[in-house]
Amino acid sequence: MNELHEECGVFGIIAPDNYEIGRTVYYGLFALQHRGQESCGIVVNDDGVFTSHKDLGLVNDVFDNSTLASLGEGHMAIGHVRYGTTGKNERANAQPIMVNHIKGSLSLAHNGNIINSFELRKQFEMEGSIFRSTSDTEVIAYLITKERLKSDSIEEAVNRAMYKIKGAYSLLLMSPTKLIAARDPHGFRPLCYGVRDDGSIVIASESCALNAVSAKFVRDIEPGEIVVFDKDGIRSNRDHCGTEEKHICIFEYIYFARPDSVIDGISVHAARVRAGHALAKDYPVDADIVIGVPDSGLDAAIGYSRESGIPYGIGFIKNKYIGRTFIAPGQEQRENMVNIKLNVIEENIRGKRIVMVDDSVVRGTTSKNIVAKLRAAGAKEVHLRLAAPAFTDECFYGTDISDKSQLIANNHTLDEIRDIIGCDTLGYLKVERLPELIERDDEKGYCSACFGGGYPAGRAASGKFKFEQKLSEKIKKEN
Amino acid sequence: MNELHEECGVFGIIAPDNYEIGRTVYYGLFALQHRGQESCGIVVNDDGVFTSHKDLGLVNDVFDNSTLASLGEGHMAIGHVRYGTTGKNERANAQPIMVNHIKGSLSLAHNGNIINSFELRKQFEMEGSIFRSTSDTEVIAYLITKERLKSDSIEEAVNRAMYKIKGAYSLLLMSPTKLIAARDPHGFRPLCYGVRDDGSIVIASESCALNAVSAKFVRDIEPGEIVVFDKDGIRSNRDHCGTEEKHICIFEYIYFARPDSVIDGISVHAARVRAGHALAKDYPVDADIVIGVPDSGLDAAIGYSRESGIPYGIGFIKNKYIGRTFIAPGQEQRENMVNIKLNVIEENIRGKRIVMVDDSVVRGTTSKNIVAKLRAAGAKEVHLRLAAPAFTDECFYGTDISDKSQLIANNHTLDEIRDIIGCDTLGYLKVERLPELIERDDEKGYCSACFGGGYPAGRAASGKFKFEQKLSEKIKKEN
Amino acid sequence: MNELHEECGVFGIIAPDNYEIGRTVYYGLFALQHRGQESCGIVVNDDGVFTSHKDLGLVNDVFDNSTLASLGEGHMAIGHVRYGTTGKNERANAQPIMVNHIKGSLSLAHNGNIINSFELRKQFEMEGSIFRSTSDTEVIAYLITKERLKSDSIEEAVNRAMYKIKGAYSLLLMSPTKLIAARDPHGFRPLCYGVRDDGSIVIASESCALNAVSAKFVRDIEPGEIVVFDKDGIRSNRDHCGTEEKHICIFEYIYFARPDSVIDGISVHAARVRAGHALAKDYPVDADIVIGVPDSGLDAAIGYSRESGIPYGIGFIKNKYIGRTFIAPGQEQRENMVNIKLNVIEENIRGKRIVMVDDSVVRGTTSKNIVAKLRAAGAKEVHLRLAAPAFTDECFYGTDISDKSQLIANNHTLDEIRDIIGCDTLGYLKVERLPELIERDDEKGYCSACFGGGYPAGRAASGKFKFEQKLSEKIKKEN
Amino acid sequence: MNELHEECGVFGIIAPDNYEIGRTVYYGLFALQHRGQESCGIVVNDDGVFTSHKDLGLVNDVFDNSTLASLGEGHMAIGHVRYGTTGKNERANAQPIMVNHIKGSLSLAHNGNIINSFELRKQFEMEGSIFRSTSDTEVIAYLITKERLKSDSIEEAVNRAMYKIKGAYSLLLMSPTKLIAARDPHGFRPLCYGVRDDGSIVIASESCALNAVSAKFVRDIEPGEIVVFDKDGIRSNRDHCGTEEKHICIFEYIYFARPDSVIDGISVHAARVRAGHALAKDYPVDADIVIGVPDSGLDAAIGYSRESGIPYGIGFIKNKYIGRTFIAPGQEQRENMVNIKLNVIEENIRGKRIVMVDDSVVRGTTSKNIVAKLRAAGAKEVHLRLAAPAFTDECFYGTDISDKSQLIANNHTLDEIRDIIGCDTLGYLKVERLPELIERDDEKGYCSACFGGGYPAGRAASGKFKFEQKLSEKIKKEN
Repeated sequence: MNELHEECGVFGIIAPDNYEIGRTVYYGLFALQHRGQESCGIVVNDDGVFTSHKDLGLVNDVFDNSTLASLGEGHMAIGHVRYGTTGKNERANAQPIMVNHIKGSLSLAHNGNIINSFELRKQFEMEGSIFRSTSDTEVIAYLITKERLKSDSIEEAVNRAMYKIKGAYSLLLMSPTKLIAARDPHGFRPLCYGVRDDGSIVIASESCALNAVSAKFVRDIEPGEIVVFDKDGIRSNRDHCGTEEKHICIFEYIYFARPDSVIDGISVHAARVRAGHALAKDYPVDADIVIGVPDSGLDAAIGYSRESGIPYGIGFIKNKYIGRTFIAPGQEQRENMVNIKLNVIEENIRGKRIVMVDDSVVRGTTSKNIVAKLRAAGAKEVHLRLAAPAFTDECFYGTDISDKSQLIANNHTLDEIRDIIGCDTLGYLKVERLPELIERDDEKGYCSACFGGGYPAGRAASGKFKFEQKLSEKIKKEN
Repeated sequence: MNELHEECGVFGIIAPDNYEIGRTVYYGLFALQHRGQESCGIVVNDDGVFTSHKDLGLVNDVFDNSTLASLGEGHMAIGHVRYGTTGKNERANAQPIMVNHIKGSLSLAHNGNIINSFELRKQFEMEGSIFRSTSDTEVIAYLITKERLKSDSIEEAVNRAMYKIKGAYSLLLMSPTKLIAARDPHGFRPLCYGVRDDGSIVIASESCALNAVSAKFVRDIEPGEIVVFDKDGIRSNRDHCGTEEKHICIFEYIYFARPDSVIDGISVHAARVRAGHALAKDYPVDADIVIGVPDSGLDAAIGYSRESGIPYGIGFIKNKYIGRTFIAPGQEQRENMVNIKLNVIEENIRGKRIVMVDDSVVRGTTSKNIVAKLRAAGAKEVHLRLAAPAFTDECFYGTDISDKSQLIANNHTLDEIRDIIGCDTLGYLKVERLPELIERDDEKGYCSACFGGGYPAGRAASGKFKFEQKLSEKIKKEN
Repeated sequence: MNELHEECGVFGIIAPDNYEIGRTVYYGLFALQHRGQESCGIVVNDDGVFTSHKDLGLVNDVFDNSTLASLGEGHMAIGHVRYGTTGKNERANAQPIMVNHIKGSLSLAHNGNIINSFELRKQFEMEGSIFRSTSDTEVIAYLITKERLKSDSIEEAVNRAMYKIKGAYSLLLMSPTKLIAARDPHGFRPLCYGVRDDGSIVIASESCALNAVSAKFVRDIEPGEIVVFDKDGIRSNRDHCGTEEKHICIFEYIYFARPDSVIDGISVHAARVRAGHALAKDYPVDADIVIGVPDSGLDAAIGYSRESGIPYGIGFIKNKYIGRTFIAPGQEQRENMVNIKLNVIEENIRGKRIVMVDDSVVRGTTSKNIVAKLRAAGAKEVHLRLAAPAFTDECFYGTDISDKSQLIANNHTLDEIRDIIGCDTLGYLKVERLPELIERDDEKGYCSACFGGGYPAGRAASGKFKFEQKLSEKIKKEN
Repeated sequence: MNELHEECGVFGIIAPDNYEIGRTVYYGLFALQHRGQESCGIVVNDDGVFTSHKDLGLVNDVFDNSTLASLGEGHMAIGHVRYGTTGKNERANAQPIMVNHIKGSLSLAHNGNIINSFELRKQFEMEGSIFRSTSDTEVIAYLITKERLKSDSIEEAVNRAMYKIKGAYSLLLMSPTKLIAARDPHGFRPLCYGVRDDGSIVIASESCALNAVSAKFVRDIEPGEIVVFDKDGIRSNRDHCGTEEKHICIFEYIYFARPDSVIDGISVHAARVRAGHALAKDYPVDADIVIGVPDSGLDAAIGYSRESGIPYGIGFIKNKYIGRTFIAPGQEQRENMVNIKLNVIEENIRGKRIVMVDDSVVRGTTSKNIVAKLRAAGAKEVHLRLAAPAFTDECFYGTDISDKSQLIANNHTLDEIRDIIGCDTLGYLKVERLPELIERDDEKGYCSACFGGGYPAGRAASGKFKFEQKLSEKIKKEN
């Protein structure tokens, strides 16, 4: 738990004609790869026949020319990248999920976390249902299928299901003839759509994925909204809109999303630059250069530089070739992982007073090593500024901040943290600055549960991880 | 459809103590590889925690040291090799199936074909169930799970389920604490168990797999029998025994099974030798040498030689290195596939009158090429003897004889077939000789539906393939 | 050293027109795979431009559709399969060797072993040559290149080189315009050529490879002969013919070659059948059945059966799926490797007196396990007959019988061997029977050095392995 | 030829004791990966026994835990990354080269290009040498081996060889007991060494690789210097020093080297910032923001911003997941490669006047697409500034600027280039500014041949590529 991870990214497309549409999803998933690096998948819909490929690995590992060709042609497709926060990272949990059903096939890709999935699963199992995975996405698939039997259409089934699902979700569903996007009433996770020159509609977790496939951003899916895309056009169901206050995850802006994305009208890059402004105002310091820790500290570093007037410079070069198959040095080896990954540009550091901006601190270990590198390169002073408040609470809405006891901010005072990391001064973004990031005047419209902001959709009955534990205890016992 | 394929093989083990038990299953599956070469899988049970690995490919391709190690230790495990006769050969259809359920996990491996799976599936789907695969094994998993909710034990659930399943099945089920073997009341497919020196019980489709892991054969599971193996010992439920007449697939003896297996008390090798005796009696000929087409014609060739007194010899050498990744020559290439695979030992052929024994003829193409090779090598006469009657009907009980129109015997008279193949004389095993193969006096105790013997368990409502078609038509439509 | 290995197989083709000629070599190498399973390679000649691919592994592993396509079109090609008997099995030692030289490119494939390669190499290194591999093939390449500079043609260079090379070799050389086959004056290793319907000439170590690519056998290359194939036809140089007595390796007939090959006019299968006849004459026994150990004992078993009148039967089924990636059980595991590989057909064994024919015994371990299996299956008596004399000496001419101390026949009397193996009686083929195998009246025309027959071309100065050792000692030292 | 490529990077280490030293080379090669992405290799020296692994691919692809383990332990090792500029990218051309020789093994890694390699090769071939590759490194290996026979030590051989080699080279040689670094008298390519806390000496093409393995920079190898590292310490031979004027490749600073490297005392990052300063002075413009094209335009963009006072900002996000196996869209597809790779941060572009800094322009295609993206994102003006002068000439000293006719600057005037690219104004770094980059007052000490600066070591007789052509013509012909 040295880094935080988003759980998932979704991507879908509906085109006016058939072509090797899985290839477009492939490029879209590349743009969302930062949202999930453990598994990925694509399902192509060719006039109702679904063809899928999914596996553990990066988009580059899972798909090659022959697997893309094997997906065939189609006019609709959805894709998914996943970072699983719990349990074994099994192939069975890869998405999109596919369901063959007499009422019509269904494919499902999900970003978020369902609070009441344990209760729903228990209920379904007692009715005779069987589960193949431990993911909450399969619970949603069951719920929609069961509602489907009582409904006139798949969108009605989704609408009915949304009354029963609690938590965070940005969903993409594909039926033989429809592509459906749904976002939970709180709007925890982003979801938007755009259009391509050829009339294709593209739906994605982040706008950067629209840009990657040359689609023009149209608008965000609203919290609580269900949007149906099919050959008859676009229809919006707003039954669930406004039933809850909006609570977009503020950490999407601070860390998760790509800086070139625009979420609910706010540029992620600009939000981070504003975090830098705020840090400069709240924690001014006399220094020679402002540097950012690549990649996620760079935007806020520019903000700090602009507000403070201290020149911006490049402090580190990150080795860009360290991929998935990189062999990290073991304990017994003489190599230092931070040296392999990051190198200091000594020219900019030696003899200087440094403001170093990073996105956040989880356990503190990495920051400590980086500060030590600056000292070794001759830095006179190191002032650490963090573009996020201190993490104090676990997240139930789709990120993996789960074990409060591992968070440095729960175990140490600010002074202790500064001493552990070894910097001269330390400043966390103030909680009251969060509204500024998304250009609000009040502390509304976002979720900051992980920074002590409270749980707008409640907590999971027993925590997501406890759900897993309970589940595995249960399945061991048999009468 | 130049060759016929068995659908599956199953293997299970319950040991007195924990070890890397998946490795034993690995060796067992090797011995059953001839029963299915498209996919395979192993599930290991470590005190109720199931770990599985399965994929498309041969046992050698799917498992290596690291995947076997990742299965961990356990005291029970089941495995499966599969040849899928229909639809796409998808990873989703690989077995064993795993079910996580609040009443206890379940893993399931199946050899056979369920006649009423379409009806059951339709019914379950209308109750809200969702299916991930197109295999009938998932239907069985659902049925047992649903019965489980009304039962006091998993074996009771299996017993109840067997009243509802029609068709051919040899099943292995693994619950957290029990290993259960069940065979359909007709006993279409073989299933037996043995014991190892350390007290482990081993269950397998064929006795050759018991031998491979040094287990001593104990007995066959009887038609209709459910046998439960757990720490308390072995318990047999015979509620379904005798409810139907026995109908072991006669083609297991003729072609599918390994000659070193003993099925229901009859040696497969000996059955084939007896087929050779019968051919020699019914179709005597003056000749210099009897040869078999490797590998499945060799046993009957020895039988023919013994009965006729004509010397047995080796006619062909088969290239044993042509594996899964072998690149067959395309149409435009100058190479001849039969030459690459088989070579004649000219010494034994030139100037001689040959009796060539093969197991059966499906479309006739391969036989034609082989006879031409003998002629080119200088054979004076070629007399083809087939150790099976002519195929005339499709099979609904687990083999892939599905399209009657492709069977040469349905389109041509015996004389025409002889001329197409280019042999001097041709003799099929007579249908009335089948009882001799398994040492019976009457035409009972076996299924010979594919040779026009009638369908003892009925035909599938619409044929297995039509089931697939109906299913795929259904899933395309949506209200 | 439980099994003996041939070192290499070579294959070449020259066609009237350009096509993807590497594919034909691919099929040819399949037929020679038994001669070398460690590495393989193909070089295609497209009007003087050579393209090559070679690597460690079986033909199936090293070549796929894309590597074959990457070889491009050409009208000439050579290929090689290799079993390296010494040192590390490095990619650098894979063949064919390719040489780019101002006098014309050269590619070289070699089967055999050069006695004086250490001396030649030392001399060349002192003249400034550098070596990339430890194989003697590179020494030949150097020698021919150096002679080339003094010669008017490549064939003259080969001719001159042959005066300097001592030992066993069947060579294929490809220059931009010529394909050259050369066989050492003793003719230790086989080499023959044939013709295809389209006029292509095919050269191969064994005739079975001609058959595989539908080429008609023309004749063997004679001991000492150099044959040049090019667009002007076929030219033979016989300067070295008759300079030595012929010494074809008798073990090619007994074990190495495929039974469907014909070497120097003698069918390998027939030679083995004759070995069986001889065993039956020299070691008669009262028994119920004659069985062969698959695959190499089957031919002699038929011979024994015919001569003795005791019926031939199938004793064992060999698992044909155990490929290169098979994971053999470790010492700590409960599995028995012989059980996994071979299974007894109990029907043919129980209560019977068995004559079991095998090709040879190296260390005795495998034979011991197999005899034990027969006993466990109920054999009353087991009489082992070996189709080769006892190994007593190392080979310097291209096989890996190298360490005399490991040979069971050097450490034990016949009675001891019988007791170690556990058979009732034991009979080795008598040395004086060897001429019969190849239809000779005298003990001439073949090499039986490994059976104590003496070294017709002398011994290597220090043995091949000592050459390796000397080499590696040398390269460690530096002034 | 849309991008320029360095040819190679070298890395070596000599340690006081044995360990899995290849792992340290692995991390060192990661830091040099930007210098060559086509092949790589490592050779480990364990007391005179050399073990090597090399193949086509990135360091990540070629090495995994098992290949690293197979290199074993040792106290010396060298490694290489390669970008081949000519001919086929064959495995035979991968380095380090290994030579087994009676005078001691030798391994060789080379960065640079030998001008007279064709002449040397021709001469060696006429003396009977054979070549396995088309690389000039093999020519060096031969030359050193031949000189070795006349020398008392390997370092004397290197010294003698350097009188005969003309061109650019930074060499690493490993003998059983010595590690030798040599740099050509012009010093075209960088080479330096450092020391680790445990006393290991590390030699690398760039200082960033010293940092990566926690080695402290000691000094650069001087032009013409030969440095020998062994158990007796460090010895420098300076016979060739000062025989030529120094000519470090100026493009190392502008583009090839990593910005965190320091070459011959000059920080690469600082040199690029100074290029930005110069551009701001020579081409001032009224604008709102300065952005760099990632990654190589960022340093100069910061320089431009500082000198001009126009704020620096982030203009583009580069997708960091596009690796080697990425499938680029084909012509027939609807995707746009530039959109997939780079995305604009519209917030920083819309309505603004942009100064965009890039390193150089080769053919102009990529620049054109990027400018179009800025326009589409709403840029009011786009002013392109290039941190290099215009390419006008080919390079004979180790980079792949080879075909003058493809260089946009040779075919178009400045105004035409501006119009082709579509920017409002365009400024190339002035040739007379080059001395400033490396803090010189005169136009000496560097090579700027590619910018029309003349060839300090002469041109290859016929160009490197013509050498290849001549070679391939030659080898096609044969008497």
